[in-house]
Amino acid sequence: MKEDPGNERMQEVSGYIEKGAKTYLKVQYKILGAFVGGLAVALLFLIKPGELSWFTMIAYLIGSIGSMWAGYMGMIVGVKANTRAAQGCTVSTKKGFEISFFGGCVMGLAVVAVALIGVSSLYWIMAALGVEKPAGIVLGFSFGASSIALFMKCGGGIYTKTADVGADLVGKAEYKLPEDDPRNPASIADNVGDNVGDIAGMGSDLFDSYVASIVASMLLATALTQVFTDNAVFIIFPILLSTAGLFASIIGIYIIKIWKSDSPGKLLNGGTYLATILFVILAFLIVLLTLPFVTTQNDVNALWGSWICASMGLFSGVVIGWTSDYFTREDKTPTSNMAHAAQEGDAVVILSGFSYGLLSVVPPAVGIITAMALSYFIGVSLIGSGVYGVGMAAVGMLSIVGTIVSNDAYGPICDNARGIAEQGELGEEVIRIADSLDSAGNTAKAITKGFAIGAANLTVLALLFSFREEAIVVIKDLGLITQYTIEIFNTELPIEILANNFQDLLLINIIKELNPPNTLAQFINSGIMDLLSPSVLIGAFIGVVVPALFSALLILSVQRNAAKMVDEIRRQFEEEPKILTGEVAADFNKCIDIATRGSLRELVLPSIISILIPIAVGVLFGITALGSFLAGAILSGFVFAIMMSNSGGAWDNAKKWIEDGNLGGKGTETHKASITGDTVGDPFKDTAGPSINTLLVVMSLTASIFLIFIAALGGGIGLLGLP
Amino acid sequence: MKEDPGNERMQEVSGYIEKGAKTYLKVQYKILGAFVGGLAVALLFLIKPGELSWFTMIAYLIGSIGSMWAGYMGMIVGVKANTRAAQGCTVSTKKGFEISFFGGCVMGLAVVAVALIGVSSLYWIMAALGVEKPAGIVLGFSFGASSIALFMKCGGGIYTKTADVGADLVGKAEYKLPEDDPRNPASIADNVGDNVGDIAGMGSDLFDSYVASIVASMLLATALTQVFTDNAVFIIFPILLSTAGLFASIIGIYIIKIWKSDSPGKLLNGGTYLATILFVILAFLIVLLTLPFVTTQNDVNALWGSWICASMGLFSGVVIGWTSDYFTREDKTPTSNMAHAAQEGDAVVILSGFSYGLLSVVPPAVGIITAMALSYFIGVSLIGSGVYGVGMAAVGMLSIVGTIVSNDAYGPICDNARGIAEQGELGEEVIRIADSLDSAGNTAKAITKGFAIGAANLTVLALLFSFREEAIVVIKDLGLITQYTIEIFNTELPIEILANNFQDLLLINIIKELNPPNTLAQFINSGIMDLLSPSVLIGAFIGVVVPALFSALLILSVQRNAAKMVDEIRRQFEEEPKILTGEVAADFNKCIDIATRGSLRELVLPSIISILIPIAVGVLFGITALGSFLAGAILSGFVFAIMMSNSGGAWDNAKKWIEDGNLGGKGTETHKASITGDTVGDPFKDTAGPSINTLLVVMSLTASIFLIFIAALGGGIGLLGLP
Repeated sequence: MKEDPGNERMQEVSGYIEKGAKTYLKVQYKILGAFVGGLAVALLFLIKPGELSWFTMIAYLIGSIGSMWAGYMGMIVGVKANTRAAQGCTVSTKKGFEISFFGGCVMGLAVVAVALIGVSSLYWIMAALGVEKPAGIVLGFSFGASSIALFMKCGGGIYTKTADVGADLVGKAEYKLPEDDPRNPASIADNVGDNVGDIAGMGSDLFDSYVASIVASMLLATALTQVFTDNAVFIIFPILLSTAGLFASIIGIYIIKIWKSDSPGKLLNGGTYLATILFVILAFLIVLLTLPFVTTQNDVNALWGSWICASMGLFSGVVIGWTSDYFTREDKTPTSNMAHAAQEGDAVVILSGFSYGLLSVVPPAVGIITAMALSYFIGVSLIGSGVYGVGMAAVGMLSIVGTIVSNDAYGPICDNARGIAEQGELGEEVIRIADSLDSAGNTAKAITKGFAIGAANLTVLALLFSFREEAIVVIKDLGLITQYTIEIFNTELPIEILANNFQDLLLINIIKELNPPNTLAQFINSGIMDLLSPSVLIGAFIGVVVPALFSALLILSVQRNAAKMVDEIRRQFEEEPKILTGEVAADFNKCIDIATRGSLRELVLPSIISILIPIAVGVLFGITALGSFLAGAILSGFVFAIMMSNSGGAWDNAKKWIEDGNLGGKGTETHKASITGDTVGDPFKDTAGPSINTLLVVMSLTASIFLIFIAALGGGIGLLGLP
Repeated sequence: MKEDPGNERMQEVSGYIEKGAKTYLKVQYKILGAFVGGLAVALLFLIKPGELSWFTMIAYLIGSIGSMWAGYMGMIVGVKANTRAAQGCTVSTKKGFEISFFGGCVMGLAVVAVALIGVSSLYWIMAALGVEKPAGIVLGFSFGASSIALFMKCGGGIYTKTADVGADLVGKAEYKLPEDDPRNPASIADNVGDNVGDIAGMGSDLFDSYVASIVASMLLATALTQVFTDNAVFIIFPILLSTAGLFASIIGIYIIKIWKSDSPGKLLNGGTYLATILFVILAFLIVLLTLPFVTTQNDVNALWGSWICASMGLFSGVVIGWTSDYFTREDKTPTSNMAHAAQEGDAVVILSGFSYGLLSVVPPAVGIITAMALSYFIGVSLIGSGVYGVGMAAVGMLSIVGTIVSNDAYGPICDNARGIAEQGELGEEVIRIADSLDSAGNTAKAITKGFAIGAANLTVLALLFSFREEAIVVIKDLGLITQYTIEIFNTELPIEILANNFQDLLLINIIKELNPPNTLAQFINSGIMDLLSPSVLIGAFIGVVVPALFSALLILSVQRNAAKMVDEIRRQFEEEPKILTGEVAADFNKCIDIATRGSLRELVLPSIISILIPIAVGVLFGITALGSFLAGAILSGFVFAIMMSNSGGAWDNAKKWIEDGNLGGKGTETHKASITGDTVGDPFKDTAGPSINTLLVVMSLTASIFLIFIAALGGGIGLLGLP
């Protein structure tokens, strides 16, 4: 805040952006308030009897507020930093970089700190209150964080691309206005979109993955506490590791501050590598500090095993990031081929980008599979539990999320700074510097995006394993309730008496048999989910389809909304031709309004789907089908998320490379084709692709948190009673 | 052949097409010959000891030849019928329709008849020779059919789209030549492509699904023969049901011949519905005729249960076809919205088509899930085996494949007839009639395509179930070999003695433990594939990724090859401008040569992948991982196949609708955008989408046929030894 916010025009523009973003978040938070309230009531009645449901509800509320705060915080930092970064660019590249980067860091570190404080204090309070499984209550916190993140991500993603696509289609393509031109009525909405979509949405998103990875491991440790150890230190060990990651990020950031380099790209990636190495060292120290609290040799081994898994998880995250980088960098084969394909026309650049996007799924899939196999293997050999090893790998991968968020938030701040420099008429040279900062941000973003998808994927796998452990307990417990309820039915009590207690009514309602059928029995007895039993296969089938459905809904939303934006921009230009000459100011507010209202309307259906479908699958097809549903969704979600992110990023970079004067440069047919690619890629990489991550986390958490309700209503085997 | 083949120019053009198609098939069959030979040797050594491997190899060779014959046959019929159909259009719509349709029927019925003769005679010969499990030998026949189909489908798909995209990009878009204009050097290659891709490829493809559905059910019946019945009639019952389907198709075709209707669309769809109803009736009669051969009440119930499952399978196939129709018809919301999206530019029409393609996955997925759940349920209640019920549903769905192939082959014949009418200068009115026939073919094709994907999906599910049954037996058998081999190792015999028998060496090689680990033990004892064990989860992960990889490779092949075609067409126009005025004939052969050589080069990698990946997964991660690999591939393959087929079809129809004069008609920016959509959709719907079906069948059959080799080399648990 100490930095110079620039000239009057810049502050005015920045003020518009701030106002637009705040308006959006205000309206969104109102809607979210209703949603959170409704879900809180549902949680109270549907999940667990007695005071536990109150605690879970409160944890849920805290998690929701934390997530909203993370989004709001990011947005405020963004709109404060952007104009200062633009002004910084008038001084030097280094100055502009510092303001953008430390702006991002404020947010990144704050998000991580709040998550850690939330998770650890909740755990300690619950433990102090004598709650039997405190980690189960922290699950509520995670669910709150995720459900809000989904809204923020979907809504923000639709908002930012409505504005972006609308501004590009009319302003750039039809009227040949340059990027961020103040005459374009959607230009401010476009900048607002960067803040509400890329910063606020992304902040909530990583907040949610981060919390989920910690909670998943805590739940696994709780469930397995009798299996591989009696020591409760393993339940809080994920928190300790994450703290090591937070300090690794902080130290990394301070080293970057004193680093003598003028290349923003090097600094950003250097920070990531530095944090990685620091994490391994700090986590080593954490293990040393924890050693006094364990007694048996097995537990000592388990601590070291956890350290290895976490370090390896983080390394594989970096490697996965590299593969994303390879597939989206303009100096590598895929993007370069795509740029050349643009010479053959619009259709060919689309086909090329789509194919390379699909191809780019293979290396990170190999990365995730390797990370999972290795951490499972180390988990079995050193820790005594393979799934806890996988959980540790997820925690490790997300440990330096502070750095990741910082790098990610840096991008939109530079993007905004560039827009403000353009609108504040700071001259060609400043815009060029802002452009170079922006482009470094794009490269860093490719790495962090691959990283984020990989980490989320490993996290939901860990959640899937913890779902299994939870589900076995719940169904076994229900077995007892079943006997009790069938007795009630036999004595033919009037229904009103049953309804006295709503929870009991749910629990007694539908369970059909005392002896569960084979698939369920195998699951209860040995935790096996038989993929070849029809219900499990059907669950997996539905799971594989859901990310496709979800992506389709989001992209159609952007398209519908962008069409309205296009109409509005055309209307303004036609009714008032003086806008184009710069004599009359364009009506920004109208465009902001369209983006705001449209995105909020459109986010409802996909968000609700993500909560209702898992519940429906569990109730209709049973608990084992719900597990395979999650597995199917995780796998196909991974394919779609990577494909969309990478093809979108590559189209964007191919276009930028052509705009740099290659293959004829701006204004050619080749450039036009590359713009088509970029426009297709926009909702791929900024709306559908990154939302899938959050979708997966929300669905996994929904399955865990509504487990009792689902098992009771569907009787564990599901209402359809398929084997 | 009795019909008038038209004027000299038409015969000349038809002659070019025939020559091009024959050249292509000749070169392809040479390559296939080497491939088939190599694989035959591999089968001899790798699959089963003793004379069984000879029988399997011979069955494989017969299946390969049958599939090649089906492709060749289709191509010959196509090139003979096209010019006659064009001439028929000069008489009346009805005449043109009849020639095209009966041309298609010749092929459809011949394919079905050969498949049935092949399967049944092989079974009977093997049974007469006293082979213990004759259906296992028939599996070799199916593998031969499928591996050839994959080559034909990939190669043909790349060929046809190389020519089509090339012709469109330069001829139509740059030089504004009309479709099929003889001045376009790629026009003949385009017509050849219709024959080698749409007819020959499709003939092989349905031949392969059809055989696979029958063989899967026969294998299931063989494996379950002790479980639900002792009566061997259930092993040949799938053949009997398929015979009912063949007769249903024949009768349906004759009724269409005498039907008084001038609407080609009504006739085509009427034929499908008619065949469906006739199948249900004829299958009823088949059950009545089979009743004397069963004795127990259980077996009587099982026969009726099979009838219900087969009928229900066929009905759900028709329903799935309807949903494809809905998503691709220009008078329904999705395609209409896509056409309107074209008004907003190229990018928006792409986004719209992609999204609706993804959305269109949901209804057929519901269809398949319902068919599977119901047939399993009926199977359990009436037959005593759920999986046999699923197999019967697959057989039912594919029973009227004669009609499906007829309808499908009709399309390319009309398409060719239109081209010949254009090149033979038969006048506007004849071209209009040929166009109307072509457009009816497109509508019918939407239904049959959805049908084919659904049927293939259910077939591979049945294959997956039969894989489980086979695998259990094989691993149990191997257990004995293990003891024997470990003994050999203990006595430290020199390696040469071991190598005396190559098969023994493989069998003894790597098996690590006498007691298989948990996952494998559960599988052997109760047929359970635990989705949450790491190896199974990893298998599913790889499976989900493979269809994406496969699609990417095929689309990139088309793109690479089409680029060469584009260069050649441009070169011809530039070097000899008189081609454009029609004074000098274009060099067709050069274009045919590019399409031929390119497609054959490009098909190798994807085809080999489909055989090597399943083997690698099984060897590295074990048999249960191989099962889940298949399941993952089946599910994600379904999503990709439906998405690509439907979005491609819808883009095509949206373009046609605009060309009919809507939204401004030809030559507008909207039309241009719709052409971009169509060009993107071309390799979607005609190369990648339909090849995925065959990929799934080939991978499933590979897993079954190399089962002993895989189990022996990987020791059942896989070389990596993951739990």
